[in-house]
Amino acid sequence: MNGADLLCETLLANDIDTCFANPGTSEMHFVAALDRQPRMRCVLGLSEGVVTGAADGYARMAGKPAATLLHLGPGLANGIANLHNARRAASPIVNVVGDHATYHLALDAPLTSDIDSLARPVSQWLGRAEQADQVGAQTARAVAAARQRPGHVSTLILHADAAWNETSAPVPAPVAPDAPTVPDDARIRAAAQVLKSGRNVTLIVSGAALMAGPLDRLARIAAATGARLMAQQSNARMQRGRGRPDIDRVPYPIDPALATFADTEHVILIGAREPVAFFAYPGKPGRLLPEGCEVLTLTQDGDDLAAAIDALAQETGADGATLPDQPAGPPLDLPTGALTPEAIFVAAARHLPENAVICDESVSSGRESFRYTHAAAPHDFLQLTGGAIGIGMPMATGAAIACPDRKVVSLQADGSGMYTVQALWTQAREALDVVTVIFANRRYQILHGELRNVGANAPGENARRMLDLDDPALNWVSIANGMGVEAARAETPQQFDDLLAAACKRRGPFLIEAMI
Amino acid sequence: MNGADLLCETLLANDIDTCFANPGTSEMHFVAALDRQPRMRCVLGLSEGVVTGAADGYARMAGKPAATLLHLGPGLANGIANLHNARRAASPIVNVVGDHATYHLALDAPLTSDIDSLARPVSQWLGRAEQADQVGAQTARAVAAARQRPGHVSTLILHADAAWNETSAPVPAPVAPDAPTVPDDARIRAAAQVLKSGRNVTLIVSGAALMAGPLDRLARIAAATGARLMAQQSNARMQRGRGRPDIDRVPYPIDPALATFADTEHVILIGAREPVAFFAYPGKPGRLLPEGCEVLTLTQDGDDLAAAIDALAQETGADGATLPDQPAGPPLDLPTGALTPEAIFVAAARHLPENAVICDESVSSGRESFRYTHAAAPHDFLQLTGGAIGIGMPMATGAAIACPDRKVVSLQADGSGMYTVQALWTQAREALDVVTVIFANRRYQILHGELRNVGANAPGENARRMLDLDDPALNWVSIANGMGVEAARAETPQQFDDLLAAACKRRGPFLIEAMI
Repeated sequence: MNGADLLCETLLANDIDTCFANPGTSEMHFVAALDRQPRMRCVLGLSEGVVTGAADGYARMAGKPAATLLHLGPGLANGIANLHNARRAASPIVNVVGDHATYHLALDAPLTSDIDSLARPVSQWLGRAEQADQVGAQTARAVAAARQRPGHVSTLILHADAAWNETSAPVPAPVAPDAPTVPDDARIRAAAQVLKSGRNVTLIVSGAALMAGPLDRLARIAAATGARLMAQQSNARMQRGRGRPDIDRVPYPIDPALATFADTEHVILIGAREPVAFFAYPGKPGRLLPEGCEVLTLTQDGDDLAAAIDALAQETGADGATLPDQPAGPPLDLPTGALTPEAIFVAAARHLPENAVICDESVSSGRESFRYTHAAAPHDFLQLTGGAIGIGMPMATGAAIACPDRKVVSLQADGSGMYTVQALWTQAREALDVVTVIFANRRYQILHGELRNVGANAPGENARRMLDLDDPALNWVSIANGMGVEAARAETPQQFDDLLAAACKRRGPFLIEAMI
Repeated sequence: MNGADLLCETLLANDIDTCFANPGTSEMHFVAALDRQPRMRCVLGLSEGVVTGAADGYARMAGKPAATLLHLGPGLANGIANLHNARRAASPIVNVVGDHATYHLALDAPLTSDIDSLARPVSQWLGRAEQADQVGAQTARAVAAARQRPGHVSTLILHADAAWNETSAPVPAPVAPDAPTVPDDARIRAAAQVLKSGRNVTLIVSGAALMAGPLDRLARIAAATGARLMAQQSNARMQRGRGRPDIDRVPYPIDPALATFADTEHVILIGAREPVAFFAYPGKPGRLLPEGCEVLTLTQDGDDLAAAIDALAQETGADGATLPDQPAGPPLDLPTGALTPEAIFVAAARHLPENAVICDESVSSGRESFRYTHAAAPHDFLQLTGGAIGIGMPMATGAAIACPDRKVVSLQADGSGMYTVQALWTQAREALDVVTVIFANRRYQILHGELRNVGANAPGENARRMLDLDDPALNWVSIANGMGVEAARAETPQQFDDLLAAACKRRGPFLIEAMI
């Protein structure tokens, strides 16, 4: 057994059996090791943003890490944006980056670079395997760190000689599951006090609090105490849809976000962080909570969030509280006229199959979508968590690999979609059950809004050439076909509705270019 | 004037008038400033690998830096692989990365990251503009550092508040050109001694030594002294083609590379680095020069390379030496039978117009190409310098913007091409005169070879799924059409020859998918 085999066996011993990869020469011994071990499923991405974004989507839905395999510093660099998103999503990933043989580094060969410096900003754990004998122990450390609650990115740098040298070191015992810590009673009592205080209280929740069970309990707490229940602006995973509590998110645009909290006197954070402005704007505050608003954090990172919510329900007497009637959802009649984002979301609500997974990177087109998707059949809803665009189609790819029996619907803005368009090929190769909807507005629409926000006039030539994608217009049907994905274009609500209905009934990848 | 205007004006005062960009919200004030200044040409890339790769290609051909505009840490990260290549090419670039307003960083908003850590490995100069008043001076420092010979990547991090705040600071005086240092006489005399010693001497040259004038002088020196003249394995720019000296490069594969130097007793480096193996291989040396081979470095980084070569020619009495007859080039009759890389290079040699620019990322397909392209009309030849694949089409994009009157021929392996396929859209938008040839072998062919090198047997299921691109096959004609580039497929040498001949006679982007 060589070091590469030891890495592979250690991953498998820890139930990590999926490897998203784009290897290079320095990783050939690991490729050979994977080749000897058919239990590991290897999934190729044609650029590393696909690899890391898929690992994120996989982790969110599988609830366990995948491994990645990246080629030296530049291969890692190409995957950093989606590792940034994964870190913000608290997704566990064992990110394996090949490096030259240890003794080769001093020669500064063309592909040599400072991998540590590149990896550190996106890695909660960072280590090197420099000798074959160390590979098992280092891999076990990487796995343990990745699984630390709520979930971390571990980067393991594997030197080529550590991979190719023989070793008699045993495969380490599987890493014990990361047991959650018990929530602090005092905090729960304090939160209950706040909820009973009669003040204007908002519960801001994220993470595991957005799974169906805890969310139901939270809705009862809110109903029993009169508090407002909101999700963080961006969340790794929410369980939503008809029959589940309908909660809003903190808005993205700065003015509505500030208005949301204007009267809030106390915020209780549950698996969430204090809300701040996504960007700074001249003359506007960065903290979204008003002066004097108090903040209580219910749990710490390692805590059992569901248990804390149970305890809070008990403490507030909300356990037996009945849920309020859900507000009636929006009408789901198909609009007539031009195809709009609204028409797309109406169609999605009409046709989404039970237990689907929505991967949302619709960006500006999706701003008003939340109430429509809530009217759909129960589903999981995954978002862009770190603001680094280009996660949507890779995330859908990884989610589909984690959940082969569930339909994945990828709601994708065109500008963001182009960042990691190569994901479509992986969807075709793996015959994944993903329907991609491209919101083809042929511009970085969000930036048009932001340019207005900074007080600029109507964009001139230079601004338009940096914000518009209309010259030439992208043809997403051609692009998808070129990567082996069937596709069609919709120009009207009826065409879109028909295409989506058909795509939701068949299996396999399909793309709809929605001309909005 | 605000800080963003000051940045724009300082760039223009230093003759930096092209900005490759993919901006985001934190850069909107800089976008607004660029919009007010029509002298700056803004070129959008649909992913940041296009932006930085184009800046590299531009710098190599324009001989001066372009600016880039990237969005925060993740936007920078997406561009790092091609900045790595640019650093290895010694291409000057003023790499502008937006960051949050200074006071917003502490809030750790979703897009916050450690930009310094990401930028350092690819930046010879790294600085921040934290206040509007500093922007001019910091920009001037970035320009000066970028222009330092032979050429550097400067990363200037521009905080949003430094961009939006008003300033009365003046535009700094233009940075003085970086005057070359005078080569050291003693080194030149020592090199001449070595050349006259009768030992087995190889001149390894790169950088400005590969421009037509110095290369002609070097060929005379080699002829007069009996030394061998070779180019470094990978070079930013070579002036080649019929009538110019025909020199080999140090081979990429390890065994031929070692064999090349088996009898070499002395190496003189001229603008080049000591040759090392691209990767380490078990049981093989990393240094390519044999034990006991002496190395003399003719110049230092800032030196006037052409002057040093002139002086060496004088010192060796090679000034009047006649050039040896060039060896007859290979026959340029079109082969019959299947379309092969060789047939493609024969066709390229037949049809390349005078003064074209070849951007070569043909990887394994291009190994035997060098003698064919030398038989083509005189041209500039640009290579992948840092081993980070995905430079080819972006580099061609930047070269075409630098040289609007020259035909650019982009020789592109399919696997590498998919990394930054978005470059085709920029070629269409800017109506660039680029012919792209895709070597469609539907696999990472180089890795098949490397897998054999590590002693693995024929690849099994997992290896094939990481090395082959055949299932599904990419359709490059569809992909190119989807991004607005006309394209056609060639299955035979005659079809390819006809398509290339036609593409070389017309203007504007065109892609040929060569089914090898």
